[in-house]
Amino acid sequence: MAHQALEVMTATHHKTKPDPETLQFGKTFTDHMFIMDYSSENGWHSPRIIPYQPLTLDPAAMIYHYGQTVFEGLKAYRTDDDRILLFRPDENFKRLNRSSDRLSIPDIDEKMVLEYLSELLKLDKDWIPTYEGTSLYIRPFIIATEPNLSVAPSTTYKFMIILSPVGSYYKEGIAPVGIYVEDEYTRAALGGTGMAKTAGNYSAAYKAQDKATAHGQAQVLWLDSSEKKYVEEVGSMNVFFKIDGEIITPSLSGSILEGITRKSIIELLKSWGEQVTERRISIDEILNAVREGRLEEAFGTGTAAVISPIGELSWKGEKTLINQRETGSLSRKLYETLTGIQKGRIEDPLHWTYEVK
Amino acid sequence: MAHQALEVMTATHHKTKPDPETLQFGKTFTDHMFIMDYSSENGWHSPRIIPYQPLTLDPAAMIYHYGQTVFEGLKAYRTDDDRILLFRPDENFKRLNRSSDRLSIPDIDEKMVLEYLSELLKLDKDWIPTYEGTSLYIRPFIIATEPNLSVAPSTTYKFMIILSPVGSYYKEGIAPVGIYVEDEYTRAALGGTGMAKTAGNYSAAYKAQDKATAHGQAQVLWLDSSEKKYVEEVGSMNVFFKIDGEIITPSLSGSILEGITRKSIIELLKSWGEQVTERRISIDEILNAVREGRLEEAFGTGTAAVISPIGELSWKGEKTLINQRETGSLSRKLYETLTGIQKGRIEDPLHWTYEVK
Ligand SMILES: Cc1ncc(COP(=O)(O)O)c(C=O)c1O
Ligand SMILES: Cc1ncc(COP(=O)(O)O)c(C=O)c1O
Repeated sequence: MAHQALEVMTATHHKTKPDPETLQFGKTFTDHMFIMDYSSENGWHSPRIIPYQPLTLDPAAMIYHYGQTVFEGLKAYRTDDDRILLFRPDENFKRLNRSSDRLSIPDIDEKMVLEYLSELLKLDKDWIPTYEGTSLYIRPFIIATEPNLSVAPSTTYKFMIILSPVGSYYKEGIAPVGIYVEDEYTRAALGGTGMAKTAGNYSAAYKAQDKATAHGQAQVLWLDSSEKKYVEEVGSMNVFFKIDGEIITPSLSGSILEGITRKSIIELLKSWGEQVTERRISIDEILNAVREGRLEEAFGTGTAAVISPIGELSWKGEKTLINQRETGSLSRKLYETLTGIQKGRIEDPLHWTYEVK
Repeated sequence: MAHQALEVMTATHHKTKPDPETLQFGKTFTDHMFIMDYSSENGWHSPRIIPYQPLTLDPAAMIYHYGQTVFEGLKAYRTDDDRILLFRPDENFKRLNRSSDRLSIPDIDEKMVLEYLSELLKLDKDWIPTYEGTSLYIRPFIIATEPNLSVAPSTTYKFMIILSPVGSYYKEGIAPVGIYVEDEYTRAALGGTGMAKTAGNYSAAYKAQDKATAHGQAQVLWLDSSEKKYVEEVGSMNVFFKIDGEIITPSLSGSILEGITRKSIIELLKSWGEQVTERRISIDEILNAVREGRLEEAFGTGTAAVISPIGELSWKGEKTLINQRETGSLSRKLYETLTGIQKGRIEDPLHWTYEVK
């Protein structure tokens, strides 16, 4: 893809910004969006920032029929001295390309897309909330647009970035949630699309989430699809367990999404000299460790919550408390370190933040 | 859902109809389409037939992000005496509702939707090609439309039907194809969405299709995701094997789509007094039967091809011919019976056709 000049069409009308105290996730969008097109003949072309607006597609567009689409999720933070920081955005665009590869979607130029995103953020900077815990959620996504009902990769695509100011995940401070161990529905199978961030993985999980809610729990703990034995993820988060001082997270089996928070936590823990192991871990091993008092903490990790401590496990009709439903010290330290780095409030020893200038 | 009056807005301009001899699948659409909306407050409402036109949706519409969508595929045939016939359309709308249940989408009233479809077909009747082997492909689909990035079921949807005249699947008569046995990628896992007709299942299969093509084969033979041992489907078709006089098709394991052609073939074979068994069948059993000369025929079944004879199997680098790459007598008889019933040319003993009046 040749370097192409970014066209910018600014909005003449500016929307009212929502109250940062009552912000909901993903319902409000900023004044502008980024869009570029792909065709087999011209590759990715016509990068442009335009006023946020509806998309007009043929009803036969392949996205509606065969789900050829990938997305990413990251956040922009506004520092106390009014700079814009992103957390490892290069990792998001690398993952987008890995997801695209799985879905037979042409890859994007990671560096150029980061430049386009930076321009968009500068234009909509006033939309990045400053209120404690808030941020601007960034949603890059690619959709197949060719109007054709053949079951085959599209020859045209749109890559877009939309922005949504989001409230604090923890209104009353970081707090543990209960999870329901799911052994009927599957999130992803080996050889499937679990390692890709693609639309179909998410709606496929709604039935299991309903079950978790019916059992009074906040999230689903997913087991591997073959044996329904090994832990994979929790909701749309990766998961960590601290047992006997060792911090364990499921190894990337092929059906697990490689979270950027997960990756950062592993690197951070190692830099602190902690013992962190990526390996298979079964639900039985976890429950035994709880019973024997050896499971110190468990938590989910992801861009939305950063750290989500697990306070309870529901499995085959039995509920088991974890760490007396308290936020563990490791969870708290990781949460504070990561959010501190993201907000530019503490040192960034591993050079994770990217400043939009 | 209350019976709601169908609003009809006819097109003022009529498109030129494509040449039936060179028709491609799924690229041309008729003059009109059907659409209705769903909201949590009003249920399904505002059923209308309007000129075929693009769809305008917010870029945050849930279909683009979490893949909450289902679809169907069936055909309208024009008989020699100019009547419009559908093949078991009630089965398609029942399956649509089963798919919707899996994807947490509200169900539709099957009978009413069939009435709406009938009105649409009458309006676009001239688009049903009459040339040998051609038909009008019908694509009903539902998409989640709420603009919201939360990972949860949408509160609004659109149900649409678009129509596309399609050419003959077999330009030179029914003929066997080669298939590649896939043991890396998975189509669907137990507890996943394989039994539903939902977008994400299809694009997830492109990588495997590429491999089949690279190995010189036309289609993928899918194995079960846990053991990579039991046969599930071929491409987007169900599959049958005739071994020692017994006709075997994989039982509905939970990850197999219940094809209407499959169901009809089972019923037809039973009405003929043939022995037909739904059970697990492993790739080893099939290859052994080929080696021992006991596998008489194999074929895929689906709306598009009706019957697609399998002439070759490629597995772990070895190619095995089936029935000397000839179309077997059972394949031919089933093909002729089903297409004869669909076109209203022969008796319809099991009352499968539905006449649009
Ligand atoms: C399925 C799934 N797992 C894990 C994660 C966590 O990834 P990250 O830390 O990059 O947000 C996400 C969210 O992005 C996800 O969708
Ligand atoms: C995955 C899959 N399997 C099987 C079939 C065959 O189903 P039917 O006979 O109803 O066309 C289809 C096509 O509809 C399909 O998409």
